[in-house]
Amino acid sequence: MKDNREKILASATRLFNERGTAEVSTNHICEDLSISPGSLYYHFRSKDEIIVMIFQRMIDKWEQSPLPEEPCIDSLFFMYERTFRYLWEYRFIHREISALYKRISEFRIIFDKAQKKRLKEIQIFLGDYSKAGIFRALDQTEIKNLARTIWFFPLYWMAYLETEGKNLNQKTVKESVGIIKNIIQPYLKKEQ
Amino acid sequence: MKDNREKILASATRLFNERGTAEVSTNHICEDLSISPGSLYYHFRSKDEIIVMIFQRMIDKWEQSPLPEEPCIDSLFFMYERTFRYLWEYRFIHREISALYKRISEFRIIFDKAQKKRLKEIQIFLGDYSKAGIFRALDQTEIKNLARTIWFFPLYWMAYLETEGKNLNQKTVKESVGIIKNIIQPYLKKEQ
Repeated sequence: MKDNREKILASATRLFNERGTAEVSTNHICEDLSISPGSLYYHFRSKDEIIVMIFQRMIDKWEQSPLPEEPCIDSLFFMYERTFRYLWEYRFIHREISALYKRISEFRIIFDKAQKKRLKEIQIFLGDYSKAGIFRALDQTEIKNLARTIWFFPLYWMAYLETEGKNLNQKTVKESVGIIKNIIQPYLKKEQ
Repeated sequence: MKDNREKILASATRLFNERGTAEVSTNHICEDLSISPGSLYYHFRSKDEIIVMIFQRMIDKWEQSPLPEEPCIDSLFFMYERTFRYLWEYRFIHREISALYKRISEFRIIFDKAQKKRLKEIQIFLGDYSKAGIFRALDQTEIKNLARTIWFFPLYWMAYLETEGKNLNQKTVKESVGIIKNIIQPYLKKEQ
């Protein structure tokens, strides 16, 4: 039974990524797995509950990933690359972030909590990197602004790529690392 | 009759801004103006046609606004402030940009065309400002990346503020100018 639960989450993630959540019903997931609707409803009450569970999984995965031990510039961009890997793996979430946030209250609660934690982490991180001399000295306003930029950027980049008429693929998503480097690099101590 | 057309566009903009396009029907617009559905349908075939017309108006307004004659740093931020004034005036468009882009093909056509023009303009602009010594020397990749950043930022900032749990008001929207300054300033020649 536990196996079915995992299969449902994996199939739903794939189908949502391929077609968007609006185009995928619980019936489609059942068809994809050749299981009965009853088997699905044994684990999840609704499609939205599946979406929320996938979202929670993504956050758990992120929070369980180890953070770099020593502040250094490579580990900074390594973290960004990891972020973009998650963006790709769960791309439906970031393509539909605004709509999901508005529509599903459970999603909103989880998102708000995670966002608060991430923004705080990024601020601490910037402070540490500034103290370690990797970033130049940053004042509190700069830290706050830069943290919001660093958080905002990947969050909406998938939605942007679609309105830019780009095909979403690992290549176009990875380009973003180059763009964020352009934002961050001038703040690094050795730049210029 | 022409008057009614303008009144419909103004009422629709206000109602869409207040409640979002999904919550506003053509009937609501008629009620707001105390006109019959027939009067509205004389001018517009559907709600989507009204949305598209408002969007086209916003773009026309932008394109008719004069660009700064001489490259200087004040005119750069003046342009950004003007952009954020439009963001506020037509805030429903930017709050719902991904959804409108996917749902309404006419919207998508207008958006794609405008986006191409804006991205090109921003690149030319960055080149000019770099040549004029306001920005430091920028290579083609930097110009392209920076242009996408500068365009992406205001485009999705309204949607972001909502998922940040912020009330959308002129103050929170204007904060964005500070954030974009942080992105641009390091590229200015006199910085650091």
